[in-house]
Parts: sequence; C-alpha cells; structure tokens
Amino acid sequence: MPQSPIRKLVPFAEAAKNKGITVYHLNIGQPDIETPKPVLDAVRNSHFKVLEYSHSAGNESYRKKLVEYYARVNINLTTEQIIVTTGASEAILFGFLSCFDPGDEVIIPEPFYANYHAFAVATGIKVVPVTSGIENGFALPAIEEIEKKITIRTKAILICNPNNPTGYVYTEKEMQQLREVILKHNLYLFSDEAYREFCYEAKHSSAMYLKDVENNVILIDSISKRYSACGGRIGAFITKNKTLLDTIMKFAQARLSPPEFGQLAGEAAVDLPKDYFNITKVEYKKRRDLIIKRLNAIPGVECANPGGAFYVMAKLPIDDCDNFCAWLLKDFSYKNQTIMLAPATGFYETKGLGKQEVRLAYVLNCDAINAAMDCLEKALKEYPGKI
Amino acid sequence: MPQSPIRKLVPFAEAAKNKGITVYHLNIGQPDIETPKPVLDAVRNSHFKVLEYSHSAGNESYRKKLVEYYARVNINLTTEQIIVTTGASEAILFGFLSCFDPGDEVIIPEPFYANYHAFAVATGIKVVPVTSGIENGFALPAIEEIEKKITIRTKAILICNPNNPTGYVYTEKEMQQLREVILKHNLYLFSDEAYREFCYEAKHSSAMYLKDVENNVILIDSISKRYSACGGRIGAFITKNKTLLDTIMKFAQARLSPPEFGQLAGEAAVDLPKDYFNITKVEYKKRRDLIIKRLNAIPGVECANPGGAFYVMAKLPIDDCDNFCAWLLKDFSYKNQTIMLAPATGFYETKGLGKQEVRLAYVLNCDAINAAMDCLEKALKEYPGKI
Repeated sequence: MPQSPIRKLVPFAEAAKNKGITVYHLNIGQPDIETPKPVLDAVRNSHFKVLEYSHSAGNESYRKKLVEYYARVNINLTTEQIIVTTGASEAILFGFLSCFDPGDEVIIPEPFYANYHAFAVATGIKVVPVTSGIENGFALPAIEEIEKKITIRTKAILICNPNNPTGYVYTEKEMQQLREVILKHNLYLFSDEAYREFCYEAKHSSAMYLKDVENNVILIDSISKRYSACGGRIGAFITKNKTLLDTIMKFAQARLSPPEFGQLAGEAAVDLPKDYFNITKVEYKKRRDLIIKRLNAIPGVECANPGGAFYVMAKLPIDDCDNFCAWLLKDFSYKNQTIMLAPATGFYETKGLGKQEVRLAYVLNCDAINAAMDCLEKALKEYPGKI
Repeated sequence: MPQSPIRKLVPFAEAAKNKGITVYHLNIGQPDIETPKPVLDAVRNSHFKVLEYSHSAGNESYRKKLVEYYARVNINLTTEQIIVTTGASEAILFGFLSCFDPGDEVIIPEPFYANYHAFAVATGIKVVPVTSGIENGFALPAIEEIEKKITIRTKAILICNPNNPTGYVYTEKEMQQLREVILKHNLYLFSDEAYREFCYEAKHSSAMYLKDVENNVILIDSISKRYSACGGRIGAFITKNKTLLDTIMKFAQARLSPPEFGQLAGEAAVDLPKDYFNITKVEYKKRRDLIIKRLNAIPGVECANPGGAFYVMAKLPIDDCDNFCAWLLKDFSYKNQTIMLAPATGFYETKGLGKQEVRLAYVLNCDAINAAMDCLEKALKEYPGKI
C-alpha cells in the first residue's frame, strides 16, 4: 500500500507552521466555501432521540430527494438504483469489490485521483493507465490507445468527469467514444461525477446519458465538493444494473449503514435555492481565471485552461516536483509565507511521468491565491533544482 | 459474498407489517435506549461554518478525549495509537487489509458476528472456526482445539468480548490462555470490545491488559452500542504496534476521514456523568434476567445465562431456524403480533451447525420482551417443524 502522495508532505507543513510561516494549502480539495446554512441546520435542528442505524442503502427519504436532484440534471432514477455510501470512497471500494476479481484490470486515463490506486491495491486489482497530455489539456487519450490496453482481464474503464486532478471536462463526443468501447468489449464504465456542477463553459455530459449501456454504467457521486460538505462523508453508488446492485447491497449490509447526520445534510441540500450552484460557480470561475492568468505569467510555467472542478495541473521549470514541493515547505518562505502543492507524480501510474508537474486546487479566495502565486513566482527563481 | 443472514428476512418482516402485524425486533443490535442528550447536543449546538474533512486518524481533540476514556478503563494509550474509523466495521476492514495477505487465515470461535465473515470475503482471507458450545455457555473452546487449527497461513485470532452473538464474557484465565498462544505462534489478537461496559457480573478483561504482547494486540471499538449511537458510524482501530499503525493510516488516508458529526458526538460522550453506564447496565440486566427466565420457562428451550452484551443464544425445539424465523414472519401471529429473530446458522462458519439455535437481542423494554416471549411460546406450539 503506497503512502498518500500529498499526505507525506504533511509533517513538513506542520513544521513550517510551527516556525510561524503561513502555508497556503493549494494541495487538497478542501473548499473554503461555507457549507450552506440550511444544510448544517438540517443536522442542528434534528429532533430524533435515538441515533439509529439507517437502512443499509441509506434513508429512503434521502434517496427520494436524490431522485429529485438527479431528475434536475436529466438523470432518471428510482430509489432502488441509489445506494448511499460513506463518501465516494466507499462507493469506489464497493464497486471494485463487486465488479472485479483479484488480478482483474481497470483502465484509467492518467494523471488520475491517487486514491483510485489505493482502492485498487486494497481490492487486489490492477490499474492500467492510458496517458493523457498537458499539451491538449488532458483530453481523453485517443480511443485506439485505450482499446490497445484491453485484455482478457479488463473489466472496466474509470473516468472522473470533471476530472480531478486535471480539471478536464469530457466532451459528449468523448463520452460516445467511451460508450462504443464498453459496448464492444462489454466493460463497466465507472464515472466519478463529484464535480458535476463545476463546469465553467461546456455542459456536463454524464455517463448516465449514454444509451443502451445502462447495465454497464456506474455513477460514483459525493456531496463533499458539491455543497462543501466533505466531513459529512456521504456519497452514492448508482447504477441501473439490478444484479450489480444486489451485490453492492451485500457489502453495504456488512458495514450496516452510512452516517445518519451526513444523510440529513445531504437531504436538505437538494432543497437549496436554484441559484446556489450559480453563485458557487461564479466564485470558482473567478478563482480559476485568476490562477490561470497568474500561472501563465510566470516564465517557464505551462498550463491548460481547465473547464471544470477546482484543480489545475501546471508544468513547472523544475527537476522534480516531489523535491520542489518538500523544498517549498522546508527551505523556502517569502514574506513569511509559503505554499503547499500536490506533486503530480502521485497522480501518474506510469513511473517517471509527471516529475515536472504539480496540481493546484483553487479552494482559497482570490487574495490568498494572489499571495500564493507571489510565493510560487519567487520560489521558482530561488529553487536550486530549477531548469 | 453471502447475503446477511438477518437482512434476508427483512422483506418478510415488511410484508407482515403491511398486513398490520406488530413485529418485535429481537433480531438486530439496535438499542431502543435513547442516545444521551449531551451527545446529540454536541452535534446540534456545533458552530463551525465549513463541514471539513477531519484528520484521517480522526480529530485530535476526539482522540485526546478517547485517551481519557481508555485511562478510566485502565487502558493507557497515546493519541497516536488510536485511529478513528467509520464504525467498528471499517476498523475490522482496515485490520484485515493490513494484517493479512489473500489466502491467510484468521481463527474465530464460532458462533461469531456474521459480518466478520463478510469482511473476510471482501479481503480474500479464510475464516477458520473453532466451535464453542451452548452447554458451557459458549466459553472459549479448549486452547488445544484452537492450537490445532494453527497453520503456516494463520495470522490472527479474533474474539468479540463480551461476545456477539452469545453474550459470553471471556474470563481473565481465558485471556491469559489466548496470550500464550499468540506469543508462542506470533499471531495478532483482534479483540472487538464494543460491548465492554455491558458486563453484568464479571469484570471485563480487555486484551489491552495482556503483558508483553503489545505489538500483537489490536483493539476494535465502537461508540454504537456504548452510547446508543449506531447511526454516528464511529469506531476505532487501536494498537501499540507502530508499524501496523503506519499501514492502517495509509488505508485511513485513502478514504480521507471519518464522519465529522459522529466524532463530535463521540467526543461529548466521554464527558457523560460517571453513573451513565450504571443506569444503562441496570436496564439491560433487568431485561436479560427477564428474557432468560421467560426462555427457560418454555418447554424444550435451552439457554445459558449470558454475562454481557445484550444478546442471548437459545436452543429451540425446532427442525431448522431459518425456516422457523421466516415462518414467524410469514405464517404466524398471536394477538396480531409476531417476532423477528436472527437464525443462528448465519453465525456459524461450519455448515450444519446452529440449525436449532436463534439469537435474541434484548434491545426492547420489558413489556415488549414479555409480549415477544408470549409470541415465541405460542409459536413453538404451533410451528409445523417442531421437534
């Protein structure tokens, strides 16, 4: 089991803070945006007397609300097709346990969310990467490249859309290409759509829109980013495949139930005013525009303009991102401030890739982003391993 | 993956309720005792604005409180030795993932909590049962029987103390016997002590009290039963083994964090008045005494007097407990009432065992227990498969 690529920097960040240095955390997808008050109030104003187990698939009242939410984004579901999980993490774990035998393979475009690898290790399956490139904004690799990787052990393709860590939003054309492949080879398509609402230009194209592959498509979801409710630990495993749902339910029953309070929060969130996502999106878009402008103004830095989520992958003029990210915390400060970034090596399965790249999460306000970019600019001048 | 032995009866219970029949749920460990108000208030009166991820090991403030709690039961820990999990379920999952390779073996006295089997399936390990008998109250099987089962693949022994489903409380002598075995064969000892406070006569003998096996002992814990807080989904993985903690942390980081609200509840629970457990224990003891008296008064029923938890295993004069439990819900009622029980076959790994046994959870008040026992008495007269 590999250590989390970001978390291994945590002791250096703690040491920097102990020295009185302000650390701007662009390393983790923890939004600073307030959890909407009605969402927290649903928990705080609850009246039950016994904090009971919920249904293993989640409270029926919450699943009914989720049916409403999904109908609004043109995904038609029944409550039976939704299994509420403890974060998207558990949905991925259950999915891997149910769809794969040990030794089976899942194809994932890299760079990808590092914890997919962790859950693959936990369940004994093999991640087969297909590399996407910064030069075309981390678009889906050519479909022939994906098809080349399919073997007798391949059971699924997994995408994250909008993508973490790249911010790329898959186009409808790319989704149709994926549809062809999963249909032809009878594969599952896992689609992690936790950032669905955060698309700044293009319309989101859900895997659930794909026709005639209903039994192949698995939607992984989460309220963490959508409502700034990471600590609620509420996600969902969604599919129209009845047999698969039956298997997932066995794992869901073994762990008894998802957290009750988080479900109350999630249920209330569906009733937020219609403009909630617009307001949030405006704020994130402003931050994205700022961070992209600032990054592109730094000599030697390259980055695409990510269309969604709240991440950007940038190529820096450095020898080794792991060294650089550690150095920023251990040996650098500017006006008593520094930044914490996520080294991109942790997002690539292929060894040696991503050494010059970092992921920046624009989860801080514009003032903080400006200060952080001042630090980065200065750091790239001072870093001994600059190229 | 097997279906939960209890949950497969759920549709029959739902059908009975739809017919207007009252179903007494003695089948599941969901206490009816109210969650203490200060525990719920800690959540309801919380003031934060962003529902953030907590530390992957759990909030430090909660782990500090847990250190206090454990000191009170004579278990001396540091915050680093405690990893807060999403229920005991996740602690077991992480423990199995970290201590075993696929194909390794864990020895568990049977009957045992059915979900241990589920987590073993999920992680590809083999459960090797050693049978304990109703005739001596489900005491630890002779240590020679346990030693006979040890192979080159055995990595651990797992006990639940007080035991679910039997209610048996392991004696200090039995714990010392287990200590000898794990020391001699260098095995892990998983000790699930979720029911620690519910010992009605004997003193609880924690695995954490065992000397010179600190690196072998793993404590699995949960706030679910202790404070009637099942829906909080808060447990803990505890050990003094530093290397093992490092591995567990990698799995903990992959799933980001345990639920925040449940941690607030757990933290407040440590400050409950000292007499909290006494009051709860008096209530459960009263129920135990009643249910044992009623069971033993029914002709052909045998049961031991369980010293802890809130379960009792009873041997009934029936052909097949799965049939009987389904029949109770589908074909029987008395004064428009019936009972839901857990068939014991689901708690035995050895095929064919437990066919005449059921588990009863005394999680209902004395009036309900009396009404449920009236039903059972009547049902055992009417059941077509009686022996």
